[in-house]
Amino acid sequence: MVGGGLGSFIGPVHRMAATLDGEIAFVAGAFGSSAESSRAGGARYGLDPARVYDDWRALFAAERERPDPIDFVAITAPNHVHFPAARAALEAGFAVLSDKPATATLAEALALAEIVAATGRPYGLTYTYTGYAMVRHAREMVRVGTLGAIRKIVVEYEQGWLSRPIEQADDRQAKWRTDPATAGIGGCLGDIGVHAHNLAEFVTGERVIELCAEVSRFGPGRALDDDANVLLRFAGGARGVLISSQISAGARNGIRLRVYGENAGLEWSHENPDRLTLSPLDEPQRVIHAGMPGLSDAARRATRLPTGHPEGLIEAFANIYRDFATSIRSGDAGERALVPGIDEGVRGMTFIDRALRSGAQGGWVAMDMGAE
Amino acid sequence: MVGGGLGSFIGPVHRMAATLDGEIAFVAGAFGSSAESSRAGGARYGLDPARVYDDWRALFAAERERPDPIDFVAITAPNHVHFPAARAALEAGFAVLSDKPATATLAEALALAEIVAATGRPYGLTYTYTGYAMVRHAREMVRVGTLGAIRKIVVEYEQGWLSRPIEQADDRQAKWRTDPATAGIGGCLGDIGVHAHNLAEFVTGERVIELCAEVSRFGPGRALDDDANVLLRFAGGARGVLISSQISAGARNGIRLRVYGENAGLEWSHENPDRLTLSPLDEPQRVIHAGMPGLSDAARRATRLPTGHPEGLIEAFANIYRDFATSIRSGDAGERALVPGIDEGVRGMTFIDRALRSGAQGGWVAMDMGAE
Amino acid sequence: MVGGGLGSFIGPVHRMAATLDGEIAFVAGAFGSSAESSRAGGARYGLDPARVYDDWRALFAAERERPDPIDFVAITAPNHVHFPAARAALEAGFAVLSDKPATATLAEALALAEIVAATGRPYGLTYTYTGYAMVRHAREMVRVGTLGAIRKIVVEYEQGWLSRPIEQADDRQAKWRTDPATAGIGGCLGDIGVHAHNLAEFVTGERVIELCAEVSRFGPGRALDDDANVLLRFAGGARGVLISSQISAGARNGIRLRVYGENAGLEWSHENPDRLTLSPLDEPQRVIHAGMPGLSDAARRATRLPTGHPEGLIEAFANIYRDFATSIRSGDAGERALVPGIDEGVRGMTFIDRALRSGAQGGWVAMDMGAE
Amino acid sequence: MVGGGLGSFIGPVHRMAATLDGEIAFVAGAFGSSAESSRAGGARYGLDPARVYDDWRALFAAERERPDPIDFVAITAPNHVHFPAARAALEAGFAVLSDKPATATLAEALALAEIVAATGRPYGLTYTYTGYAMVRHAREMVRVGTLGAIRKIVVEYEQGWLSRPIEQADDRQAKWRTDPATAGIGGCLGDIGVHAHNLAEFVTGERVIELCAEVSRFGPGRALDDDANVLLRFAGGARGVLISSQISAGARNGIRLRVYGENAGLEWSHENPDRLTLSPLDEPQRVIHAGMPGLSDAARRATRLPTGHPEGLIEAFANIYRDFATSIRSGDAGERALVPGIDEGVRGMTFIDRALRSGAQGGWVAMDMGAE
Repeated sequence: MVGGGLGSFIGPVHRMAATLDGEIAFVAGAFGSSAESSRAGGARYGLDPARVYDDWRALFAAERERPDPIDFVAITAPNHVHFPAARAALEAGFAVLSDKPATATLAEALALAEIVAATGRPYGLTYTYTGYAMVRHAREMVRVGTLGAIRKIVVEYEQGWLSRPIEQADDRQAKWRTDPATAGIGGCLGDIGVHAHNLAEFVTGERVIELCAEVSRFGPGRALDDDANVLLRFAGGARGVLISSQISAGARNGIRLRVYGENAGLEWSHENPDRLTLSPLDEPQRVIHAGMPGLSDAARRATRLPTGHPEGLIEAFANIYRDFATSIRSGDAGERALVPGIDEGVRGMTFIDRALRSGAQGGWVAMDMGAE
Repeated sequence: MVGGGLGSFIGPVHRMAATLDGEIAFVAGAFGSSAESSRAGGARYGLDPARVYDDWRALFAAERERPDPIDFVAITAPNHVHFPAARAALEAGFAVLSDKPATATLAEALALAEIVAATGRPYGLTYTYTGYAMVRHAREMVRVGTLGAIRKIVVEYEQGWLSRPIEQADDRQAKWRTDPATAGIGGCLGDIGVHAHNLAEFVTGERVIELCAEVSRFGPGRALDDDANVLLRFAGGARGVLISSQISAGARNGIRLRVYGENAGLEWSHENPDRLTLSPLDEPQRVIHAGMPGLSDAARRATRLPTGHPEGLIEAFANIYRDFATSIRSGDAGERALVPGIDEGVRGMTFIDRALRSGAQGGWVAMDMGAE
Repeated sequence: MVGGGLGSFIGPVHRMAATLDGEIAFVAGAFGSSAESSRAGGARYGLDPARVYDDWRALFAAERERPDPIDFVAITAPNHVHFPAARAALEAGFAVLSDKPATATLAEALALAEIVAATGRPYGLTYTYTGYAMVRHAREMVRVGTLGAIRKIVVEYEQGWLSRPIEQADDRQAKWRTDPATAGIGGCLGDIGVHAHNLAEFVTGERVIELCAEVSRFGPGRALDDDANVLLRFAGGARGVLISSQISAGARNGIRLRVYGENAGLEWSHENPDRLTLSPLDEPQRVIHAGMPGLSDAARRATRLPTGHPEGLIEAFANIYRDFATSIRSGDAGERALVPGIDEGVRGMTFIDRALRSGAQGGWVAMDMGAE
Repeated sequence: MVGGGLGSFIGPVHRMAATLDGEIAFVAGAFGSSAESSRAGGARYGLDPARVYDDWRALFAAERERPDPIDFVAITAPNHVHFPAARAALEAGFAVLSDKPATATLAEALALAEIVAATGRPYGLTYTYTGYAMVRHAREMVRVGTLGAIRKIVVEYEQGWLSRPIEQADDRQAKWRTDPATAGIGGCLGDIGVHAHNLAEFVTGERVIELCAEVSRFGPGRALDDDANVLLRFAGGARGVLISSQISAGARNGIRLRVYGENAGLEWSHENPDRLTLSPLDEPQRVIHAGMPGLSDAARRATRLPTGHPEGLIEAFANIYRDFATSIRSGDAGERALVPGIDEGVRGMTFIDRALRSGAQGGWVAMDMGAE
């Protein structure tokens, strides 16, 4: 991994995502702007110090000489690192999975495309929302013609966290995202606008051919855009609107897509990522849930849990595992307070037993019935 | 791990949850009812075959002799295994993290409590819903008195997947859950009723002292309950209702809790696990989101992402990683179709570039402007 | 009308509802516990003073002698008046439409049933929720077998407004509802529990044959119940739960019904009365909206607006009419502030005109283009 | 009333709204394009035939000569009638309450503004959404500074009913709205775009000064726009987006407003018109409900029911009244089926009585206990 050291929010997310299915091992990295910060990052992830490098140049140079080199590198550093690190990795023979946007400028992206073509190495981008099962199912529904010809596409990505100029205080996430030296040409457009643009094209297969934008900077002293509203024209004749903002006060992370075809409309919203609403003309709306029978292969392959279980269940589970492991390690009863133990186990069995008795007898029974 | 072999849904969830934070290594297990099925399960998880055992007896016997034994065992097998496996593990000196319900019968639970006390080994239960950040925050709000004295508690857990007698077809999950030999005394009560009961007590700190239940079997030929409605009396004077069903046709996995105090009510629902609604008397409802500023420590420690990002985001991310890794491995272009690549990278940068131009000039610009 | 004088909330609702469709004229009444308060009530409704009576005895006596008597009487007074007023009206030959519950005690209800039979006059009860189009459509869906045999019915009616003993302050609505002398035998049960019970039977056609209740009084010094949780058994074998509360702090007026059959479940909630959710086994949920094509006759006859318009639109419209009429009457410019006028009219046409120009030309245009 | 005859959907809505509060009497009108259709319309409303006129010219001429003339006229005819009828009414000395848009063209609107000024008669426009209590409260919140300076305004009005060219079949509502001769210059813009524009300005007090629009016609053969997306610039520096569509397949009547200020955002949606969501920076979201304590006077004056009762409750009530009245008139038992009667009354009292007994005794009791 390149980037994702101490202070990074997205680094650990990449680590958890990469290793979730037990198919990818996280073994090496360069995690910061100095040798020292890189070592701190490596320690955070518990890596073998021998494979924690001072910078990504050293990483690629050393790994290509190993008998067991890495297979690919994930680039999670700020945008200005994307291009040089991806170029170096590809040229060293490694596949690359990069955070979006691809690069800091359009010229870099065009140059990178040539390098990808020349080296023939796999290159991927973590446009996260394309990973949701219901987004993939939406794409399938459009592809098989459930909506008919697409007429209108509305995509929004609204955040409010840059309402105040928190980059002038010491907010690290805000700082690099509002600084052209690290963020590149786009502020809000580069951070979330490209997500919205990609989501619209990913689901519909329609490509934007013309656009008309209003790009604004509301934060005092801000060098990059923090709000953009864009009218879109698609190759197939559809019209669209893209709304992207980081000054929509009170909005959290509202990415949402609506697609209207001749015969039906569909809606997906990140607020309820496990659901997809299909609204056929003159028929009841249908709410499609991840994990239910009859979904596309694309959706099924992207689902780990039975229907009705939000994928976040794994994290809830993980909290219990982590707290339990911590309590074993520390032996501290206080830290264990949150993990249900044998008392709760006995209570649970008592509850079942008493409920069955009450149901059989009819009427009230006590939980505590004295000695059994 | 004990259990969780081929065909198990909860096994892989335990594996993902245990390893999510990179603090727990999954190194050994006994995964089935025969040596053969255990080996198949071990292969599924990519474990060292030397630490995949024929059964849990062998697992504990061998591991306790190793210089680097396991620290704890997760029991994810059907209910009838919980007690003997937990007993054996505790007596072999291992900590235990067990799936709920604790045991197959109340008598076993009482016996297990004695063994836990006698061995002094840590014992935990994966009551999953207690792992959600907002459930833990709800518990904190009750604890600090935001609601005042608790008056009423309504907890529901409704599923519909056993509406039809699918255990008579070949549904493996339904089979063991409806068979007293593997499920124990409770059907619906043991599978999900205990979750509801635990959630109510976990959040409120109030304990059920009396109950009055209606327990039903709707599925033809079913030996265990598939529906139960229970009136509850709590020690502190609160009254409650617990609804638990696996024949609520069309319900997916709707666990939901409402708590009403003298001064405010609160609601949490698994449909939107990242939210908590607090309704103070005579004031606007407040919707509290995971990750927002000002939450309790308990909630913050259980949250991995910034506010507005459902925890399932990690899984969406993981889908992209997995698909990318698969495509590298197979070299198959078809399999890569879903992972955005350099084309999408260039398009994204083009989008940003054109939006900025349009914003600066005012008016429409083309995405494709010929050679740059 | 009997009752509904000054201070009554439900009186004006009856008046608006009765006259909404222009088929019923509101011409006479007795509106209070004294001749004076009745006159004040009559003035509130702008009735001919000659048909505003001192009490309901006088109302029936006088109206039956008129050449143009009333056709029926609406009884909207507190519960203890329901029986004597209904009896007197029926015996005087008038049809009766009464607020629920029918009477103050069960004995009165049985006596009233005999009077209805003996007089042969029409008698109706305003169980309001049965008037919703989607409730009536739900009933039709059950009737035609969309759900299959009914297995489980969950009905809730939760309010929080009696969380505090506001009847001890001067809350008129709380006072009579918590006083056995005016409310009858039921507190919460009589005020809203009967609504829930009726809704369950109305929609499903199933009849409760046995019940098991927990009835509580949380408000200090309260003589009648303010909370009740009830297990239900229905004649056809279905099981059910009824939750009814006026101390569910923070709840407003949450009446909600879930019905589970062999093949599908349905849900209706007063929060979104224009919607009905049908959840067939193994198929996407369907959200059925009032006014959409293909609904039952029963639903269509109960709908006044096209789909997507909540019925409350009529009230929003009425606000504009009322404010406009008030402003004409008073000539007061201040009072007109809220009604859009000719400036808004010109702005609206300017908006359309400019949008069309911008669309035709491409690019930005000013709203104010100087003299046309 | 001018317009609103047979076949009109909005005519009866105006009638119900005008008379809802009992302060406005509906006494005269001209309801169609011929004397005959006008008479049919008058009969629909049950008016005195002497005050049902052949056309609006006759209406104003005759009414101005009466000793008891109308106070104002409501114009509910298609758009092309708005200007001539309003002009004639104003010049005859009557106040005018007109449907939107004000006129068929901008030139007419400017002319009308001069006539309003010259005659000094009150002129109002039924921009319906401004009548909602929570819209008025939103306006108050902006006015008192709860949001701080406004930065961004997103307003949408999406319908899907013109997805197919139903005007080519015999859909009367679609026909006049898609024909420039009756609709004027705007199709979708005139029918719903102006609502969205007005709502944005009404709530925020900000005025659009520049706009950039994409205006489309998707319906084959359509002469007027059926879709428009518009970027907005407001006088105070705010930026905005207006989306308006009648080809958003599956959308019903989704008018929705989001306003983002420096300190908070707010959202109102017609799907839940009784709610308003305020999202302050760094604090929990607040859901404000109509009828709750502490609302602005503007909101309270526009609310007829206690909190938690959607205003559509009045219509549900009205359905019961209407069905009851119809059943009395017809004497037909069949028609009464939907109105709960004495049987339901007795059942309700039995339910209360049995619930109280069960609560007192503990345990199950039968509904039918034989003779009392």
